[in-house]
Amino acid sequence: MNDPDAPLVLLDERGAIVRVTLNRPHAGNALALPLIEALAAAFAALAPREDIKVIVVAGAGGRIFCAGHDLGELRSALDRETPDEAYLARDFAALTALMQAIMAQPQIVIAEIEGVATAAGCELAAACDLALAASNARFAVPGVNIGFWCHTPQVQLIRAVGAKHAMMMLATGRLFPATHALEIGLVNALYPPEELAGAVEALAAEIAAKPASVLRQGKASFNRIAGRGIAEAYAIAREAAQAHILHPDAKEGITAFTEKRDPRWI
Amino acid sequence: MNDPDAPLVLLDERGAIVRVTLNRPHAGNALALPLIEALAAAFAALAPREDIKVIVVAGAGGRIFCAGHDLGELRSALDRETPDEAYLARDFAALTALMQAIMAQPQIVIAEIEGVATAAGCELAAACDLALAASNARFAVPGVNIGFWCHTPQVQLIRAVGAKHAMMMLATGRLFPATHALEIGLVNALYPPEELAGAVEALAAEIAAKPASVLRQGKASFNRIAGRGIAEAYAIAREAAQAHILHPDAKEGITAFTEKRDPRWI
Amino acid sequence: MNDPDAPLVLLDERGAIVRVTLNRPHAGNALALPLIEALAAAFAALAPREDIKVIVVAGAGGRIFCAGHDLGELRSALDRETPDEAYLARDFAALTALMQAIMAQPQIVIAEIEGVATAAGCELAAACDLALAASNARFAVPGVNIGFWCHTPQVQLIRAVGAKHAMMMLATGRLFPATHALEIGLVNALYPPEELAGAVEALAAEIAAKPASVLRQGKASFNRIAGRGIAEAYAIAREAAQAHILHPDAKEGITAFTEKRDPRWI
Repeated sequence: MNDPDAPLVLLDERGAIVRVTLNRPHAGNALALPLIEALAAAFAALAPREDIKVIVVAGAGGRIFCAGHDLGELRSALDRETPDEAYLARDFAALTALMQAIMAQPQIVIAEIEGVATAAGCELAAACDLALAASNARFAVPGVNIGFWCHTPQVQLIRAVGAKHAMMMLATGRLFPATHALEIGLVNALYPPEELAGAVEALAAEIAAKPASVLRQGKASFNRIAGRGIAEAYAIAREAAQAHILHPDAKEGITAFTEKRDPRWI
Repeated sequence: MNDPDAPLVLLDERGAIVRVTLNRPHAGNALALPLIEALAAAFAALAPREDIKVIVVAGAGGRIFCAGHDLGELRSALDRETPDEAYLARDFAALTALMQAIMAQPQIVIAEIEGVATAAGCELAAACDLALAASNARFAVPGVNIGFWCHTPQVQLIRAVGAKHAMMMLATGRLFPATHALEIGLVNALYPPEELAGAVEALAAEIAAKPASVLRQGKASFNRIAGRGIAEAYAIAREAAQAHILHPDAKEGITAFTEKRDPRWI
Repeated sequence: MNDPDAPLVLLDERGAIVRVTLNRPHAGNALALPLIEALAAAFAALAPREDIKVIVVAGAGGRIFCAGHDLGELRSALDRETPDEAYLARDFAALTALMQAIMAQPQIVIAEIEGVATAAGCELAAACDLALAASNARFAVPGVNIGFWCHTPQVQLIRAVGAKHAMMMLATGRLFPATHALEIGLVNALYPPEELAGAVEALAAEIAAKPASVLRQGKASFNRIAGRGIAEAYAIAREAAQAHILHPDAKEGITAFTEKRDPRWI
C-alpha cells in the first residue's frame, strides 16, 4: 500500500477520456510538491492532444479524494533555524499554477469525489469544470484549525459559491456533508458511492461525443468571459462566436440539424 | 399558422404594461435576423415612454418560448463558396446588442417562459430582469450538439448561475427541467402551466404600481453596480441614492410613510 | 422603553466575543445618523483589539433587527424650502462607510437576525460576514414602495444572491420569509426563534477558538480576492499564503497537526 516506487499519478486512457488518479492513498493523496509537479506534467502533456476531450480527476484509495497540502512537507520547510522560504514560494507557485492550468486546460475536467476533499483538495475539486461526488463525500477548508487560512482554496470557493457560504466554510473549518456542497453549488450532483464511478463515466462519455473543436473553443471563451463586465463579456463572446461558426464542425452540425440527420464529425 | 404577413412581434399594451410576443411559432420563435431587428425596434420604441413600466416577453404558440438562432438562416450564410461573414457579423452584433438593450431597457422586463427555451432563447430568458416559467418548461444551451458552442448565451448564464452549473449546461447541451432552472437561479419561480400567465400578470401589475421614476433610476443603478468591486459599487450607489432622494416621488413616498398614509404618485 | 438617555449601541463583551446591539427598539432600530455614527465608532474602537475575534450584531427588542434608514430624519432633510443636501450627503456617506467598515473589520462579524430586516437593515445583515436568522425573520428592500430604490442595499444583495433574485426583491419591495433568504444565499442558516441566540453564541465561540492572527489575515485576503479575475485573485492569495505561513501560529498549528496533538496558540 505504501510503495515508494508507485507512480504519484496514475493515467488511464480510454478513447477520448483520460483518468488522472492522485496516487498517494497512504498520505491522503496530499499535494506534496512532487505530486503537484506530476499532475502539472500530466495536464501539460494532455493539453495539446486533440484526441483527448475529457479528463477525470480522482483520488486513489476511496477514503480521501485529496487532503490538500502535504503538511509534513510544509513543516519541514518551517522547522529549521530560518524557514525555507524558497521552497515555500516554489510550492505555492506550483499549486496555484496547477489550479489555473486545470481551468486553462483545453479538455473538460471532471472531479470524481469519493471521500474527503479538504483545503487544497477542496480547491482542486472546485477548480475542475464539473464535479460529481459520492453522497457520503465531505468537504472542508480547515486551514483555520491549524493556525493557517485556506488562502488559495478561497479563490475557487468564492468563484463557486456565495460569499456567506464561502466565509462559513473558511472561518469555521468545519467538515460539511456532500448535501451542503450540492446546495451551495460546489458540486454538480451527488450519487450513491457505488454509482459514482459509473455516473462520471457516463458524463465523460456524453461530453466526449462532442467535437473536440467545440469543447476547446467553448471552454476558452467561458474562462475569458467569466468575471468580466457585461459589455466586455459580450464583445468577447461575439468575437468567439463569429470565429467559431466558420469552423467545419459548426457548418456540419448546423447543416445536419437543418437536414434532420445526425452530424458526421470530421 | 404559417402566415408570411403575420407581424414578427405582437405588441399588446395595457396601461403601464406591454406584452411583447415573439411571433414565429411555426419556427420555434427562432431569432432570425428580422425578428431580432423587430424586437430591437420594439424595445427602442418603448424605451423613452415613461408611461410604460413593465415589459413582458413571451413566445407565441405555447410549445417553444424561443429556440435561439434561426439555424436555417445561419446555414444559408455558411452554405456558399465563401461564407457570408458580413451577414454573420451583423447577426451576432444584432443579437448581442438586443440582449444588452434588454438589460439597459428602462422598464422592468419579465420573461414568461412556456415550453422550451434553448440557446439564444435561454439567453433571452436570462437577459430579462425577472423570469417566471411554467413548471413543465425546459432549458438548454445545446450549441455543443451541433458543432457550435453557446458563446453568447454563456454571458447570461455565468451572470445568473454558478460556474459549475453553467459549464454543465454548456458542455452537455442537455435539456434541463424547470425545477433545475429554479434551483440554480436561472428563473425566479415556477407555476403550473395554466397559472403562468396569471402569475406574470400579477407580478407585472405589482411592479407597475410603483412610480416609473423609481424603477428607471433603480434598474439603471442596479446594472451600473453589478460586476463592480465593493468600493466602486458603493460609490455609484451612494451617488445614485443622493440624486434619487431629491426626486419628488421620493419626497412624497417618504412623507406618506411617515404620515402613515398611502403615497399619491405624481 | 423609549428612554432618550439609553445608549444607541449596547456593547456586551465576553472573552473574545463582543455583542453589538442596535438599541432603538421603539424606532425599529432604524439607522438614524447618530446610530450610524455610534456603530461606526464601536467598530472602529474594536478594530485594533487583537483580543477580540468575533463581533455579533443584533437588534434590540426582538421584533425588528433593523428597519433601515430613519425615514423621519430623511423627511426632515427633504421637507424644507431647499432640501438639506449636505445632511443627505453626510448620511449616505456615513451609511456606505459603515457597511464597508464591517467588511474591512478585522474580526469576523455575525448578524443575528430576529424579526424584520429591511432596506439598509437588510444591507447590514448582508454586509456581515455570516448571518444566522430566526426561522420567522423576514427580509425586504422596500424602497420601491416609498418612491425610492434601495440603491445601497443592492450592493450587498448583488454580492450575496443571484441577479434575478436581487432584482425580484428590489423591484417588488416584497417582504420575503426567512426560508427564501436561506434559499438564495442571503443568510447561512435558520433556527427556531428560541434557539437563535444559542446558535449564534455557539458559532461565535467556535470561531473565537481560532487564533486571532489567522482570522485577521484570512478575512483580509478574502475581501481582497472577492471580485477579482482568477489570475489576479491567485496572485493575491499566493502572496497572502506565503506571508501567513511564516506566522508562529501557522508553524505551531502545522507542527501540532503532524504530531497529532492539540495546538497551543500563543
